[in-house]
Amino acid sequence: MTKLHACLFGAGEMATIHARNLISDPRVDLRYIVDPATDRAEALARACNARAVSADEAFADPDIDAYLIASPPRSHADYLDRAAATRAYVFCEKPIDHDIARIRACMARLKGREDRVQLGFNRRFDAHFLRLKQAIAAGQIGRVEQVLIISRDPEAPEVAGFIHSSGLLKETAIHDFDLIRWLLEDEPAELYVMADALINPAYLTVGQIDTTTTTLRMAKGTHVTVLNSLRASFGYDQRIEVLGALGQVSVGNVVESQMVLSTAAGIRSEKPLWNYPQRYAAAYRAEILSFVDCVVHRRPVTPNAFDGLWASLISEAAILSMTSHAPVRVEAAG
Amino acid sequence: MTKLHACLFGAGEMATIHARNLISDPRVDLRYIVDPATDRAEALARACNARAVSADEAFADPDIDAYLIASPPRSHADYLDRAAATRAYVFCEKPIDHDIARIRACMARLKGREDRVQLGFNRRFDAHFLRLKQAIAAGQIGRVEQVLIISRDPEAPEVAGFIHSSGLLKETAIHDFDLIRWLLEDEPAELYVMADALINPAYLTVGQIDTTTTTLRMAKGTHVTVLNSLRASFGYDQRIEVLGALGQVSVGNVVESQMVLSTAAGIRSEKPLWNYPQRYAAAYRAEILSFVDCVVHRRPVTPNAFDGLWASLISEAAILSMTSHAPVRVEAAG
Amino acid sequence: MTKLHACLFGAGEMATIHARNLISDPRVDLRYIVDPATDRAEALARACNARAVSADEAFADPDIDAYLIASPPRSHADYLDRAAATRAYVFCEKPIDHDIARIRACMARLKGREDRVQLGFNRRFDAHFLRLKQAIAAGQIGRVEQVLIISRDPEAPEVAGFIHSSGLLKETAIHDFDLIRWLLEDEPAELYVMADALINPAYLTVGQIDTTTTTLRMAKGTHVTVLNSLRASFGYDQRIEVLGALGQVSVGNVVESQMVLSTAAGIRSEKPLWNYPQRYAAAYRAEILSFVDCVVHRRPVTPNAFDGLWASLISEAAILSMTSHAPVRVEAAG
Amino acid sequence: MTKLHACLFGAGEMATIHARNLISDPRVDLRYIVDPATDRAEALARACNARAVSADEAFADPDIDAYLIASPPRSHADYLDRAAATRAYVFCEKPIDHDIARIRACMARLKGREDRVQLGFNRRFDAHFLRLKQAIAAGQIGRVEQVLIISRDPEAPEVAGFIHSSGLLKETAIHDFDLIRWLLEDEPAELYVMADALINPAYLTVGQIDTTTTTLRMAKGTHVTVLNSLRASFGYDQRIEVLGALGQVSVGNVVESQMVLSTAAGIRSEKPLWNYPQRYAAAYRAEILSFVDCVVHRRPVTPNAFDGLWASLISEAAILSMTSHAPVRVEAAG
Repeated sequence: MTKLHACLFGAGEMATIHARNLISDPRVDLRYIVDPATDRAEALARACNARAVSADEAFADPDIDAYLIASPPRSHADYLDRAAATRAYVFCEKPIDHDIARIRACMARLKGREDRVQLGFNRRFDAHFLRLKQAIAAGQIGRVEQVLIISRDPEAPEVAGFIHSSGLLKETAIHDFDLIRWLLEDEPAELYVMADALINPAYLTVGQIDTTTTTLRMAKGTHVTVLNSLRASFGYDQRIEVLGALGQVSVGNVVESQMVLSTAAGIRSEKPLWNYPQRYAAAYRAEILSFVDCVVHRRPVTPNAFDGLWASLISEAAILSMTSHAPVRVEAAG
Repeated sequence: MTKLHACLFGAGEMATIHARNLISDPRVDLRYIVDPATDRAEALARACNARAVSADEAFADPDIDAYLIASPPRSHADYLDRAAATRAYVFCEKPIDHDIARIRACMARLKGREDRVQLGFNRRFDAHFLRLKQAIAAGQIGRVEQVLIISRDPEAPEVAGFIHSSGLLKETAIHDFDLIRWLLEDEPAELYVMADALINPAYLTVGQIDTTTTTLRMAKGTHVTVLNSLRASFGYDQRIEVLGALGQVSVGNVVESQMVLSTAAGIRSEKPLWNYPQRYAAAYRAEILSFVDCVVHRRPVTPNAFDGLWASLISEAAILSMTSHAPVRVEAAG
Repeated sequence: MTKLHACLFGAGEMATIHARNLISDPRVDLRYIVDPATDRAEALARACNARAVSADEAFADPDIDAYLIASPPRSHADYLDRAAATRAYVFCEKPIDHDIARIRACMARLKGREDRVQLGFNRRFDAHFLRLKQAIAAGQIGRVEQVLIISRDPEAPEVAGFIHSSGLLKETAIHDFDLIRWLLEDEPAELYVMADALINPAYLTVGQIDTTTTTLRMAKGTHVTVLNSLRASFGYDQRIEVLGALGQVSVGNVVESQMVLSTAAGIRSEKPLWNYPQRYAAAYRAEILSFVDCVVHRRPVTPNAFDGLWASLISEAAILSMTSHAPVRVEAAG
Repeated sequence: MTKLHACLFGAGEMATIHARNLISDPRVDLRYIVDPATDRAEALARACNARAVSADEAFADPDIDAYLIASPPRSHADYLDRAAATRAYVFCEKPIDHDIARIRACMARLKGREDRVQLGFNRRFDAHFLRLKQAIAAGQIGRVEQVLIISRDPEAPEVAGFIHSSGLLKETAIHDFDLIRWLLEDEPAELYVMADALINPAYLTVGQIDTTTTTLRMAKGTHVTVLNSLRASFGYDQRIEVLGALGQVSVGNVVESQMVLSTAAGIRSEKPLWNYPQRYAAAYRAEILSFVDCVVHRRPVTPNAFDGLWASLISEAAILSMTSHAPVRVEAAG
């Protein structure tokens, strides 16, 4: 069997997760790790039996079948542009870029091959959410009327570490915006955002907020509410509820274990899995295996570059609603 | 022991609930039932060992210590005005009136004795919600950041039966608006409403909607979301979640029984109690006993007429947000 | 309406529960309270608008329609004998007596009117267990194969207070033995008991044990396990699970409230209701109302004196298994 | 890094699970698959990049560091004897043999190196049960008093397929007997078994039963109940509850997903994972990784051959109790 030759950009937490999943697939030869922090790149390369190289070297190798971009968000678009010039498939972490114009420029370069660029919306590969989507699609709750997504990180970052972030709406809520589109097979028509720094007012000094409540009306009329926060002290809070004409389908948190301790202090069950590496471990693995499958069989990927653009357009509308203090219509990706 | 002499306006479902709770209290002499539907009034009077009389007769009796108004909403304000002219305490179902000007006129008449008029916000007396409020007040979740209230009826009414209603926001959501104020000991500063007829578009022909998603920012900054709907096919859906700096406190639905049936078809537990008479049976009883206590001991009631006005002001802002399609500031009751 | 004239033996905790339920029923005139502790008898009588009298006076009144025996167990059989000489119905707390010969003597006196003597097996009137029984009877789990009953008190008594008890198997497990017969509509054929003083070895000095594990084989072959203990530190532990060919039906504990607190310390839900007065409040009320119904309509009661004998025969077999350290066949009541 | 050279006996379901876990560990070279069904052996060998060989060839290779025995139970002891003659570590599925004398003969050959033979008691490696054991060991429930283990297969086998089985007590309950010893760090002193063919009376024709209720008294006095059945129609039913002086710790079933569907038909959550390959996937992986660790670092394994003997002695006592219809003392392994 000829192996799929892969190159991974990034050597941080997310890249390491992808690297491990790549090397566990016997079809994959993870050839290169690219990261300007060469120590980190070399450590990850060693652990994966790969080589740490420069981006130039990586793009110069004509044998690469797949570039995976898990570097910091501000570098995504440049790597994507260069990968677009090759024959390879691309896996790109969200968002493509923080700037819509820059994303549209990428899309122009990708024209005709958007479905060879998979976006890192891992939650679409979560087994729990897949069951929920199947239940909706099978008509088990009838026409969908009112949706709730709760998506909260366990620990708010230090103010200093948050300066260069593109923020809660562009980096975290973007997952939820993609989830809505995927679950409902519908697009948001308009939205309204309340956003505040309730956890730490000092975030405002670096232009950040920590708590958002977003309501969306979908093209088909469905109401959606997304509650985001940088801190749920009991662990990563990831829930979905969908109400329809015939009932409701929901997915609650996945907990650390089934152990329950009953004492005079109460009935104590275990907390949700602590953060995304734990909660979505299987989903990260599934999204990479799905990507590898598509590369191997030359099939279109999903979610693709259009999905990346859509989610960013919704984030952009959310930012505008926040700053204008008014409901905002969502621009279409088409 | 001298008994408390009471008069009840209304002989419908809600009035019947109150009547039963009144006669089960040995301190109460339920003397009169007043309802223009005399058959109904007489039937209830017979069951309670009371007399069905006209409103004039009822107000002419100087011995009445307490008037309880559980007649249709459009009659509340008139009865309240007349009761205000007596020395009696008043229990009044919400809302005082659908029209804020009319409510303010009532308040003017009541001036100085607003705390002798108890409003029928029964959920404040629910044991589950009381535990939740205590947990918040005790600081168990720290400063409150993000609140979710889900409040859905089990069955949407026929269009014809909905014509004279003042609607979901004024008759149902008003409970949730009161709950927020009570739980958070804070007032809403502004709100935004999405409202649609998703269950039955024909509601629009009678000026009604069936699904609302309301987001509020409280004076202290807390985000609140209220999801209302006229239909949750699995039963009365009444839940609260409150996220704070230290964690979350929530109350889920109360179910019909603890029975769980596990078969090849899945693990089936029991549905929520079907509707308000079942879910809030104990709360209705507790609010009436609390009212009777206040009358007997000449103490101020709670929630009082001001609370009734506040909740209606929030409903009014909600209506304005719905019609103007924009966020709206909430007028203060003070 | 002519009222039902009732006389209650006992003025302790259980008698007080019955007294409250009796006086809340407008069909009942609770005429007498009988208790050798006259202070206690008079206090309860005052609270119920009844008279504290001697047993002789109580039995001398030919108008009494119902005698209710909620005095200490050692007095049950004597009161039952005397009540058997009247035309009245009887409600008798379990057990009829600790001694099977004495119970058989009672039964002989009652011959032909065993179905006018209701035994205080309150759990048959619990709404949760009734749903479970209905599910079994409706065939929802098919033929029953393996049953588990967990029945544990929250607090073990002081050794001194346990001296005169007839013990865990005769006073507590007897409820479970009755439950089995009622749920399964079958009789135990044999049983085996492990019994120890694990909570407090000092119980052995007064001939008592605190922890029992009883396994029974029913006439139809079904396996039943009953776990009893005098102490579940988290509250009254009252659960049933029934496995059948098609699945399982179970009833878990009923908790203090639906509140759930999620913090860094875990997800804490509320404890089971603390003890029998809380857990079975509605069942105590239902059993008394059912008894009153039977008296008013001159219908046979259930559970009746035969059920009392059966449950005691099972307890007796359990004691024999414990002391003989061997499986024991259960004597039939017939 | 020198690799650990391994040989696997068996090519059935359990062997395949172990093979996959072995080859996923980069420290392991899975060299041989041995199975008299050569087609099956070769298929598995191909999938693992190993060679299908005879047992003689396998034992003739002096480089083998680890023999793993996952062949049918009747072959375990012979392979174990031959492996005992090499310098290799052994992993052996339970039971070592159905015959205690044969097990003791194996033990005699293994003398002095019992801790290089790991028994396949996978449940000791389950993350949920580990948390439960930690809670007990940390004293969170105080002294242990009463334990319940429920262990039921989802589907009862055909009678024909059950002829050669050593039965429910020797093949299934043996896991539970090992769990008890491990959780409680105590040995059973005596036990009593009720065993019947309630699911399918035809099992009796091949000397099998399908439903057992076993009660054990541990050396320290703790009561243990084990409920076994060949059929829980809703899926693999694997639960543990441990009551102690300070409370209870329990582990419930692990379900297929967190999805909950609420409709007019009830609140339906997902079933337990269907059978052992699903429920214990992570535990199977963990036990093999632990074994590999021990081989690599020349450390004693756990659970070891003594644990295998102990569990079989308890099974043997259970069989004796079943046939003698009496409580039986458990022979010590020492």
